[in-house]
Amino acid sequence: MTPHVAAPDPQAGAAVKAADRAHVFHSWSAQGLIDPLAVAGAEGSYFWDYDGNRYLDFSSGLVYTNIGYQHPKVVAAIQEQAGKLATFAPAFAVDVRSEAARLIAERTPGDLDKIFFTNGGAEAVENAVRMARLHTGRHKVLSAFRSYHGATSTAINLTGDPRRWASDTGTAGVVRFWAPFLYRSPFYSENEQQECERALAHLEDTIAFEGPATIAAIILESVPGTAGIMTPPPGYLAGVREICDKYGIVFVLDEVMAGFGRTGKWFAADNFDVVPDLITFAKGVNSGYVPLGGVAINAEIAATFDKRPYPGGMTYSGHPLACAAAVATIQVMEDEKVVEHAAHIGENVLGPGLRELAERHPSVGDVRGLGVFWAIELVRDRETREPLVPYNAAGEAAAPMAAVGSTMKKNGLWPFINMNRVHAVPACNVSESEVKEGLAALDVALSVADEYTA
Amino acid sequence: MTPHVAAPDPQAGAAVKAADRAHVFHSWSAQGLIDPLAVAGAEGSYFWDYDGNRYLDFSSGLVYTNIGYQHPKVVAAIQEQAGKLATFAPAFAVDVRSEAARLIAERTPGDLDKIFFTNGGAEAVENAVRMARLHTGRHKVLSAFRSYHGATSTAINLTGDPRRWASDTGTAGVVRFWAPFLYRSPFYSENEQQECERALAHLEDTIAFEGPATIAAIILESVPGTAGIMTPPPGYLAGVREICDKYGIVFVLDEVMAGFGRTGKWFAADNFDVVPDLITFAKGVNSGYVPLGGVAINAEIAATFDKRPYPGGMTYSGHPLACAAAVATIQVMEDEKVVEHAAHIGENVLGPGLRELAERHPSVGDVRGLGVFWAIELVRDRETREPLVPYNAAGEAAAPMAAVGSTMKKNGLWPFINMNRVHAVPACNVSESEVKEGLAALDVALSVADEYTA
Ligand SMILES: Cc1ncc(COP(=O)(O)O)c(C=O)c1O
Ligand SMILES: Cc1ncc(COP(=O)(O)O)c(C=O)c1O
Repeated sequence: MTPHVAAPDPQAGAAVKAADRAHVFHSWSAQGLIDPLAVAGAEGSYFWDYDGNRYLDFSSGLVYTNIGYQHPKVVAAIQEQAGKLATFAPAFAVDVRSEAARLIAERTPGDLDKIFFTNGGAEAVENAVRMARLHTGRHKVLSAFRSYHGATSTAINLTGDPRRWASDTGTAGVVRFWAPFLYRSPFYSENEQQECERALAHLEDTIAFEGPATIAAIILESVPGTAGIMTPPPGYLAGVREICDKYGIVFVLDEVMAGFGRTGKWFAADNFDVVPDLITFAKGVNSGYVPLGGVAINAEIAATFDKRPYPGGMTYSGHPLACAAAVATIQVMEDEKVVEHAAHIGENVLGPGLRELAERHPSVGDVRGLGVFWAIELVRDRETREPLVPYNAAGEAAAPMAAVGSTMKKNGLWPFINMNRVHAVPACNVSESEVKEGLAALDVALSVADEYTA
Repeated sequence: MTPHVAAPDPQAGAAVKAADRAHVFHSWSAQGLIDPLAVAGAEGSYFWDYDGNRYLDFSSGLVYTNIGYQHPKVVAAIQEQAGKLATFAPAFAVDVRSEAARLIAERTPGDLDKIFFTNGGAEAVENAVRMARLHTGRHKVLSAFRSYHGATSTAINLTGDPRRWASDTGTAGVVRFWAPFLYRSPFYSENEQQECERALAHLEDTIAFEGPATIAAIILESVPGTAGIMTPPPGYLAGVREICDKYGIVFVLDEVMAGFGRTGKWFAADNFDVVPDLITFAKGVNSGYVPLGGVAINAEIAATFDKRPYPGGMTYSGHPLACAAAVATIQVMEDEKVVEHAAHIGENVLGPGLRELAERHPSVGDVRGLGVFWAIELVRDRETREPLVPYNAAGEAAAPMAAVGSTMKKNGLWPFINMNRVHAVPACNVSESEVKEGLAALDVALSVADEYTA
């Protein structure tokens, strides 16, 4: 699909950027060192600036526009709901709120049938942790070092990503452990089965030494996203489920990034036939057209708050406009078989295409993923697996990855880059030809990376 | 204005409620004990159910629909933006994001000219605290016992409201103190001036004993909302400002509820000619038509993150649809003089009306507020000031207030009730005749309260 790119208007772009620099304080940034691109419009898998440049979005924003930009049916649903009832307080029953909850509950695995709505992913994690603590009467929560769970206090302290460090208060009640990752195995494993066994043993040992009766929950991304898209080895999540059952620990799967089609299933957990006790979601639930997140809650935990008030909430819980966008998004994903399409793209186009690039580019150390959720790890040396840039590198040390990124942009591909990785995370309804266009631009950028190899 | 109430349809209402009970998990509630009203529509100051009942909303939802429901200009702006660019990632410059930031920055006092957008109030508080801690290199934050700051980890631990208790981890770094409240003076004061002096002395003593160099911030609601709408005595906030300056403490005013017209000024701080270092906002910024909150940041704190990355963010920071709603809301508030109108209503209609009710109803112990932000405190005895129900009463103990509330509802007035208080918090653009209608229903309900007086 060729989007209707507007005519260039550099003056308008300059004005937007100047207004931005005057008053907008940006996330995760040194305000004086950034130069944000002014965006003029977007459609499907593309967006464009005011200077006539069009980009194929291989980042899906922050991995959230699962149905692409400006899907006409979801836009229409938002417009209709805005005209009907844009907002209403959370204590009431509202048609579209009930309907969104039903559509989500019908897609979550097992008996996760009650939906608590939040505004985004971090609030979902905060509330899942609160539920687990009150349900168990225990305090500690275990999370993985290679993870991201959001930026509010509990969510950021559970996060393994270095973005935690500046806000890390050494919070009581947070314990981090190592999840499986064969390519950089914390357990010196030689194959997936060994990695799985050793990772489960490590987790159970950690629980034994922390004290099982002190642990409320284990939280894991079903497939860790920003930290590197490490698909867990077969049996790992089922093993964690068993450990949780053994010790009465609540199993939380964070599906904020991996959920709603990204892995080629409605929930990433479905790839592993695992049913957690709580699922946190956001992003893909309505492709972020209106801020929405939430927690899907199983029957047992919901029952804890049947007679006893649940002590959490927010002004916009179950926001009608956000719920209307979720209803329409889920309907579009059903009607257009978006989830199945994402699986197809992963198996037949994006996965094979990335592996083919890896064969030709010595800088590619590892290719991994599923659906439209892929990472390629760039290295200086395939033998030593030395990353192209060091962990958490900034400035000069990160220059090789910056060069890769700017080459992608120059070739019309908007990248998602984290440390020494390029993530290929287009919309779930990206077309085959769009993927091929993206792979071609990536091919050029990887030649830049190759120059840094030994 | 008489809204276009739809014809009753009890069957549809029953279906909405059944769907709600099947899948929606509600904030702050025992899920098995609630019976949420199914809402069919809303317009201006009114909403209606499926059974032909219409309610005058004296709660503004959760004190956030400052321009009432379904304002046509804001609805149109949301519809237009949805058709143009519903969402885009936070790292980019987007016209409507810049414009919203500019309109907010132009209205904040002093040099609070950089705007960091969040999804709601709790996230705004989380980020204000992070900014203060990193700016000062100190850790403790002081907050008032009678307060509400949101339900994420830091926000709920700063909160004084009993809703904190279940989530209170005794978080290191939170210190609570007593803010002025003459009607139930913590300092045995006899007049406002004394209350002001003693409250400031108490705060400075607390700082001295906690260690000034350990304190990053003091956070106060300019006018505490849910905790009771206690307008601070003249000089108090200016005194806190001086104390903050003396010890290098960041002064955060939480204007999530009090901001954007509620007190008859753009910001409640404007009533006291005080300029804090950070302002947290949400709710009224776009009347909650799309989830939005944020932090307004002064030049000094913004400069801290000029070369050093600000370590916080969220997927939907500066969400275009939410920002478009803010731009339109602020424009409507200007064009229709909504802020001035709120001041007029408070001075000439709502304030005098509530005081007149107090004269006739022995259950009214205190009337206080400004703009469209009023509380009446119900007591068993005006002399002893014994509250009509005990602090944090539930079930049978709270029955008298439940009776007051249900009488209001029976008379077509939707109340905001907290403990022994009825808050009168209509939309900022409520009409005089609507206020009179509300006062008449309140009159009836107060007779119920009177029966419990000594
Ligand atoms: C797995 C995961 N959890 C939580 C979050 C936080 O979501 P939000 O940015 O909406 O707060 C993210 C955001 O990227 C995420 O990827
Ligand atoms: C003063 C104040 N701060 C913060 C909040 C939290 O806002 P939210 O519910 O949007 O998280 C509220 C909500 O009522 C509030 O009144």
